[in-house]
Amino acid sequence: MSKDSCKGQEQEIEQHRIAKEPFYVPVREEIILFRTAFESKIPVMLKGPTGCGKTRFLQHMAYLLKRPLITVACHEDLTASDLVGRYLLKGDDTVWMDGPLKDTTVVIHPLTDDRRILPIEKKGQIIEAQDEFMLVISYNPGYQSVLKDLKQSTKQRFMAIEFDYPPKDLEIHIVQHEAGVSEGIAQKLVKLGEKVRNLRQHGLEEGVSTRLLIYSGELMKKGIDAKTACDVAITRPITDDPEMQRSITEIVSAIF
Amino acid sequence: MSKDSCKGQEQEIEQHRIAKEPFYVPVREEIILFRTAFESKIPVMLKGPTGCGKTRFLQHMAYLLKRPLITVACHEDLTASDLVGRYLLKGDDTVWMDGPLKDTTVVIHPLTDDRRILPIEKKGQIIEAQDEFMLVISYNPGYQSVLKDLKQSTKQRFMAIEFDYPPKDLEIHIVQHEAGVSEGIAQKLVKLGEKVRNLRQHGLEEGVSTRLLIYSGELMKKGIDAKTACDVAITRPITDDPEMQRSITEIVSAIF
Amino acid sequence: MSKDSCKGQEQEIEQHRIAKEPFYVPVREEIILFRTAFESKIPVMLKGPTGCGKTRFLQHMAYLLKRPLITVACHEDLTASDLVGRYLLKGDDTVWMDGPLKDTTVVIHPLTDDRRILPIEKKGQIIEAQDEFMLVISYNPGYQSVLKDLKQSTKQRFMAIEFDYPPKDLEIHIVQHEAGVSEGIAQKLVKLGEKVRNLRQHGLEEGVSTRLLIYSGELMKKGIDAKTACDVAITRPITDDPEMQRSITEIVSAIF
Amino acid sequence: MSKDSCKGQEQEIEQHRIAKEPFYVPVREEIILFRTAFESKIPVMLKGPTGCGKTRFLQHMAYLLKRPLITVACHEDLTASDLVGRYLLKGDDTVWMDGPLKDTTVVIHPLTDDRRILPIEKKGQIIEAQDEFMLVISYNPGYQSVLKDLKQSTKQRFMAIEFDYPPKDLEIHIVQHEAGVSEGIAQKLVKLGEKVRNLRQHGLEEGVSTRLLIYSGELMKKGIDAKTACDVAITRPITDDPEMQRSITEIVSAIF
Amino acid sequence: MSKDSCKGQEQEIEQHRIAKEPFYVPVREEIILFRTAFESKIPVMLKGPTGCGKTRFLQHMAYLLKRPLITVACHEDLTASDLVGRYLLKGDDTVWMDGPLKDTTVVIHPLTDDRRILPIEKKGQIIEAQDEFMLVISYNPGYQSVLKDLKQSTKQRFMAIEFDYPPKDLEIHIVQHEAGVSEGIAQKLVKLGEKVRNLRQHGLEEGVSTRLLIYSGELMKKGIDAKTACDVAITRPITDDPEMQRSITEIVSAIF
Amino acid sequence: MSKDSCKGQEQEIEQHRIAKEPFYVPVREEIILFRTAFESKIPVMLKGPTGCGKTRFLQHMAYLLKRPLITVACHEDLTASDLVGRYLLKGDDTVWMDGPLKDTTVVIHPLTDDRRILPIEKKGQIIEAQDEFMLVISYNPGYQSVLKDLKQSTKQRFMAIEFDYPPKDLEIHIVQHEAGVSEGIAQKLVKLGEKVRNLRQHGLEEGVSTRLLIYSGELMKKGIDAKTACDVAITRPITDDPEMQRSITEIVSAIF
Repeated sequence: MSKDSCKGQEQEIEQHRIAKEPFYVPVREEIILFRTAFESKIPVMLKGPTGCGKTRFLQHMAYLLKRPLITVACHEDLTASDLVGRYLLKGDDTVWMDGPLKDTTVVIHPLTDDRRILPIEKKGQIIEAQDEFMLVISYNPGYQSVLKDLKQSTKQRFMAIEFDYPPKDLEIHIVQHEAGVSEGIAQKLVKLGEKVRNLRQHGLEEGVSTRLLIYSGELMKKGIDAKTACDVAITRPITDDPEMQRSITEIVSAIF
Repeated sequence: MSKDSCKGQEQEIEQHRIAKEPFYVPVREEIILFRTAFESKIPVMLKGPTGCGKTRFLQHMAYLLKRPLITVACHEDLTASDLVGRYLLKGDDTVWMDGPLKDTTVVIHPLTDDRRILPIEKKGQIIEAQDEFMLVISYNPGYQSVLKDLKQSTKQRFMAIEFDYPPKDLEIHIVQHEAGVSEGIAQKLVKLGEKVRNLRQHGLEEGVSTRLLIYSGELMKKGIDAKTACDVAITRPITDDPEMQRSITEIVSAIF
Repeated sequence: MSKDSCKGQEQEIEQHRIAKEPFYVPVREEIILFRTAFESKIPVMLKGPTGCGKTRFLQHMAYLLKRPLITVACHEDLTASDLVGRYLLKGDDTVWMDGPLKDTTVVIHPLTDDRRILPIEKKGQIIEAQDEFMLVISYNPGYQSVLKDLKQSTKQRFMAIEFDYPPKDLEIHIVQHEAGVSEGIAQKLVKLGEKVRNLRQHGLEEGVSTRLLIYSGELMKKGIDAKTACDVAITRPITDDPEMQRSITEIVSAIF
Repeated sequence: MSKDSCKGQEQEIEQHRIAKEPFYVPVREEIILFRTAFESKIPVMLKGPTGCGKTRFLQHMAYLLKRPLITVACHEDLTASDLVGRYLLKGDDTVWMDGPLKDTTVVIHPLTDDRRILPIEKKGQIIEAQDEFMLVISYNPGYQSVLKDLKQSTKQRFMAIEFDYPPKDLEIHIVQHEAGVSEGIAQKLVKLGEKVRNLRQHGLEEGVSTRLLIYSGELMKKGIDAKTACDVAITRPITDDPEMQRSITEIVSAIF
Repeated sequence: MSKDSCKGQEQEIEQHRIAKEPFYVPVREEIILFRTAFESKIPVMLKGPTGCGKTRFLQHMAYLLKRPLITVACHEDLTASDLVGRYLLKGDDTVWMDGPLKDTTVVIHPLTDDRRILPIEKKGQIIEAQDEFMLVISYNPGYQSVLKDLKQSTKQRFMAIEFDYPPKDLEIHIVQHEAGVSEGIAQKLVKLGEKVRNLRQHGLEEGVSTRLLIYSGELMKKGIDAKTACDVAITRPITDDPEMQRSITEIVSAIF
Repeated sequence: MSKDSCKGQEQEIEQHRIAKEPFYVPVREEIILFRTAFESKIPVMLKGPTGCGKTRFLQHMAYLLKRPLITVACHEDLTASDLVGRYLLKGDDTVWMDGPLKDTTVVIHPLTDDRRILPIEKKGQIIEAQDEFMLVISYNPGYQSVLKDLKQSTKQRFMAIEFDYPPKDLEIHIVQHEAGVSEGIAQKLVKLGEKVRNLRQHGLEEGVSTRLLIYSGELMKKGIDAKTACDVAITRPITDDPEMQRSITEIVSAIF
C-alpha cells in the first residue's frame, strides 16, 4: 500500500489515545485484574447490564495503560470485512483498505490464543502482533446480542470480569459527580434506581442504568421538577408497557 | 476528500435549515424539556402514535434552536452505509461519499454518550462532534418498527418525550387552523376522531391521526359533502376490514 | 450531473404524457374526489380488486389533469435505489443515475406530508417539489402485496378511493365497448362475472375481473365458441382447483 | 447505446428464429386458440404437467406465426435485471446491457394490458412495443414454481390453454415417430405411461412424461432390453421411493 | 472476447482430458447403458450413496468415450453465474468470463431436451451445442442435496443409472486392489462394511463407503493395528453418536 | 498473473512455517496416526471439545513434518471465494487474487479423493496438487458448527482422530508447564477441571478447557488469589447462568 495511506494509519492510531483521565471509581478488584490480564496477554470479556460503567472502565484502563482505544460497535450489518479490511480501487489498482483491527496491525497480538496471529483470508496473509495489543469484548448477558451468540469455543478464550450496578454509596457518589446535583438528590435517585431494578422480578426487561439516573439529575439541576425529570429520563425510555410505567411513576411519587 | 465535495456539503447543510416558523401549539412541557435536553446534550426519543405531531414539533424546535434538521427515514433496506457513508469511484480513485450523518461531520456530537465520537469502521476513523449536534429518534410504540427493535442498551441512552393525540380543545384549534374550516366542523371532526380512537379497544389497529381529520376538513372546505369526505379520508385509509368500516361509517352518520 | 443526462430526463418526462383520452366511465364521485385531492395536495390510494379499472381511472385522470403519468411496478426485488436512483460510472467518474421518482425531481411535491421534501439519503440531498406533483398508490386489499404491508404510519398519509367491479349496466357497457361484442353477449358475460364473483364465498381466491370478461368477448368476436372462450379466458386463468373449475364450467353452460 | 451493440441485438433476434417446422400433432383447438390470442394481443399461459408438449407446441406456433422465440428459464436466482437488463462498464462508461426482454425492445408489446409499455425503472424509461410481440408463460400447476406464486393480479392478465398428456392414440403416434420404434412397442409404452400416471392417486409426485416414454423407446431401439430401458428411463428418474419403484417395476413386468 | 482468452479456453478443455484409464470394475450393465445414452444424446443421472463409485465410473466412461470431463461441485454458494459465466473488467471493457459450462461452448449440446440450446439470459445469447456434449448429474438420494431439490420437470429430463455398494466379491477385489492389502484383510473389511451398513436400520445416517474401507486397509498396510485403523477410518468419521460408535466398535472387535 | 504477485505468494507460504517446536505431549497414538495419514494422503479430521489441544497438536505435526501451516477460520461470512480466490482490478485488468487454498496451488493435493484436483469454477480451471499437500479440518461435535453441517459425503472423505481433555497426570503436567505454577496448584486446577466437566450432566453447555485452567494458573502466579482467579478465568467465561455459576463457585471453594 502507498506510503500515504500508511502515514494516514499512524495518525489514526494517535487519535484513538485518551487525553484526560476519565472519571472512574473502582468497585472491587477490576483494575488489578485487568492490569494482570494485560500483562499476561489474556483477552478480557466485560459482562454486565447496560450503562453500569463497562465502557467508562475500559476508557479508564486504556488511559492508565497508555494504550490507544479502538472501539468497534457490533451492529447487525457489521461484516468481517469491516473488521479486517477490504479491497478498494486506488488509481488503476485495487488496494487493500485496512479495517479497524488491521489499522493497528503494527501492534496486534494473538487475538485469542498463543498463536499470536491474525490470518486475513482475503489477502492470504498473516499479521504478527506487538506485545501491547489486547482484545477486550463487552456484552450484556441480559438479552440477545451479537456476542452472546458466540460459541463456547470463543468464550473459552477470554477471562471475564463481571460488572453490576455500583453499590449504593458508590452510585450516589457517581450520580452526584456526573450530574452535579446535591447529595440529597443523588441519594433519592439511587434509591429510585434500586426500587426500579427490583421490578425486574415483575417483568421489567432490564433495570434502570446509572446513566439514566444521571440524566434525571441533570434535568433537575436545569430546573425541571423531579417528577417530570424521572418520567422522561427513566419511566418512558425503559418501558412501553402502561402497567409498568404506572408502577414506576408510583415509586417516583413515593420518593420525591 | 476534494474541496468541491466539501463545499457541496456546506451547501447541503444550509438547505436543511427551516426558513419560516412551523405552526405548532404546545400541549404540555415538551418545549422546555426539549430545550433542556439540547443544552444538556441528552439525546431525545419522541414516542407517540402516527400523525399526532411528533414531526411538526421537531421542525418547530429546529426552528427555535436555529439548527438545521436532517431527516433519515428508517426503511427496511436502509444500511449502515446509507447513514455513515460509502466508497465511490471518483476519476481513478475510490473516494468516500458521506452519508447524512457524516455530511454533518463538522457539527457532530457524541451520538449517545459522553464519548463524543462516531467511529466509522469502514474508514477506521473517529469523528469529533460539535456542541450543537443533537440526535433525536421518533417512533410509534403501537407497532413493530425499526426503532422499536432497539435494544435496552440503545433505549437507555435517550430521554423520552411521549406524545398523544392533542387534547380536545387544542385539536379543534389545530384542525380549524390547518384545514381552514369553521369551528363547528372542526368540533365535529375532533369528536369523530375521539370516537374512532375508542374503537382501538374493539380491534382497530391504530386510532385516526389528527392529519386525517385535517384531510377530511380540507375536502369539506373544497365542497365534498361531509359523509364522503370522512369516508375517503378516514374510514377507507385506516382499515380494510368491512366490519370496522361499517362501525366507523355509523359514527360518521351520527355526527354529520 | 451532465447537461446531456438532464436533457435526457426532460425527454423522458414527455414520453410519460398520455396522448389520447383513455376510455373510462365514472362509477360514483371518483373523478371529483381525485381532482379535489390533486388541488388539496393530498396523496391518494386506489383500493380495489384486480382488473376493476383502477389503472384505467388513473390514466384517465392523468389525461384530464394534463400530468405525465410515471408508473412504478412494486415487484419483490424493487429496491429503494430503483426508486430514488443509484450511482453509476460515467467516464472516470461516479455519477448519480436518477430513479423514476428523481427523474421528476423538478416537479416533485411532498411525498406524504407538508414537509414538501424527498430526502435522498445516499446523496445527503433534499429535493424541493413542484406544486403539480401528486403521489398515488394502488393496491388490492384482497391478498398480501407490497403495499398492504405498509404501516399505519404510511396509510394514514393517504386519502383512499375504493373501487369495486362496475355496477351491472355500466360493466355491460364497458365489455361491449372494449370487446366490440353485441349487447346480448355483453349481458351474458357480465351475468357470468356476477355469478363467478359469488363463488368467493365458496373458496374462490378472487372474483373474475372485467378484463377477463373482455378477453372472453374478444375471443367470441373472433369466432371462438362461447364455452371455449369462457374456459380459456375465465375458468383456467383464475383457478387451478378442479372442483372450482367444474363449478365455473357449469355456470358457463347455464348461461351460454 | 453504441451502434455495435444494437447490431449485435438484431443478429441475436435472428438466431431466435426456428428454421424447420417442429413436429407437433394438435390435440384439440390449441392452435386456433393460440392464433386468435396472438391476433387479439392477449397474453397466453400454457398450463400442464412436465413433458406433455407445452414447449414443443410453443416452438410449433412460433414457426407457424414466423416469430422469433425467446426463452427465459425462471430459475431461483433469476433477477429482474436478468430480464430487463443491467448496467455494465464499456470503455470508460457505464452502458446498459439489454436483458432478453429488452433485446426485443423494437418489437415489444404491452406485456399484460393495453398500456402497451414496459417501464424500465432502473433507466426511468418506457419501451413502446411492436404489434407482433406476444408474451407467453408456461407452468406446471402440479408443484410450487416461480410462476405458480404469481398473484391473481398477474394471472388475470393471461388467457390459459391447459395441456395434459396426449390422448392414447396420439401419444402412440408421437412415441413411434420420436423414438423410431414399432407401433407395438409404442403401444406398450403408452399403456405403461397410462398405468404409471394412475399411481398419482397412490402418492406418486407426478406422472411419467411423454418424453421419458420416448427415452425408453430410444434405448430399446439401441438394443437395451425393455425391462432395463423402462427401469433407467422411467422408474429411477421419477421416484426415489423403493415402494413406488417396486410398483412401477411390476407394471413394467406385466406389460413387457 | 479476445483471441487470448479463447486460446486459454482450448487449453483448459485439454487439461480436462483423463490421461490414464481409471481402475473400474463394472457391476451390471452400467457401461453399455451409459454408452447408449451418450449415443442417443440422453442426459444421465447417477444415483447412489457416498463413495460407492459414481465418480470413478464417470471418469472411466469419460476415458472410454475420449471426452474431457468437466466437474462442477454444487456447493451452497454456487450461483448460476458460476456455471454459465459472468462479466469482468478487461482493460477498459467489461468482458464476458465463461463459466465451466460456457468453457465448452463450442461443444455444448441441448442440456436437457431436443431444443439443443443453452440460453444465457445475462448475455441475451443462445449457444448451439456440438454432438459430443453430454450432461451428467450425480446425487445421493440419501439426504437433502442441491440436486435432490430438483423439480420433477428437471428429473424427467434424465435417464437414471442407480448405484449401490459393490456386491461382496467385487468390493473385496476393489479394496484389495486399491488399498494393496491381502485378500484376507479385504474380506474382513468388506464383511465389516456389510454389517455397518445394516446399522442404517438402527439409526445410522448412512452406510460406510467403499472409500473408508480402503482407507482402513491403507492404514493397516502401513502398520496401524486393525482395531485402531477401523476406529479412525470408519467409526469416528461416520458418526458423532457414542451409542452408535460403541456398536460399530463391537462389530470391529468381533471381526478382527 | 504478474510475477510480483507470484513472488508475493512464495513469501506468504514461508511465513506460514512454524519456527520453534510447539510444546505438545502426546496422549495416545495421534502422532503416528497423523504421520501415516500424511504418508497415505488421507485427509484428517480432528474432533474434540474446545481448548483440549487440537490446534496445538496440528502445529506440532506441521513442525515435525516440516510443512507450512495455513489456517482458515470458518466463520459465518466465509465464502467459497475467500477460500479459492476472487477477481480483482489490477491496473486496467481484472486479475485473479488467490485465496488461502490457491496460495498453495503449487503444493496442492487432491482435497478429498484420488482425483488430485481442485476445480476453480469461477476460473474454469483445474489445479494439480503436490504430494506434500494435506487437508485437515478441526471441529467440535459438541455444538452446531460450520463443519458439523457437513454432509456424510464430505465426512466420509476424512479419517478422524478424536481428542478429549488430557488424562489427569498429563493435564497436570501441561498446566504446570504452560502456566508456570507449582505441581500442587496444577493438581488442584486439574481436579477443579474434572469436577466442572462433570457438571455437563447437569446442564453445563460444555466443560472447562485446559486453556482456561492455564489462564487461572497464570493469574495466581501473578498474585491474584485462587478464588478470584478461578472466578474470572473459569466460572464467568463458561456460563451466564447464576445457578451454574454458584455450583462452580462452591467447587472452587471446596478445592482452594
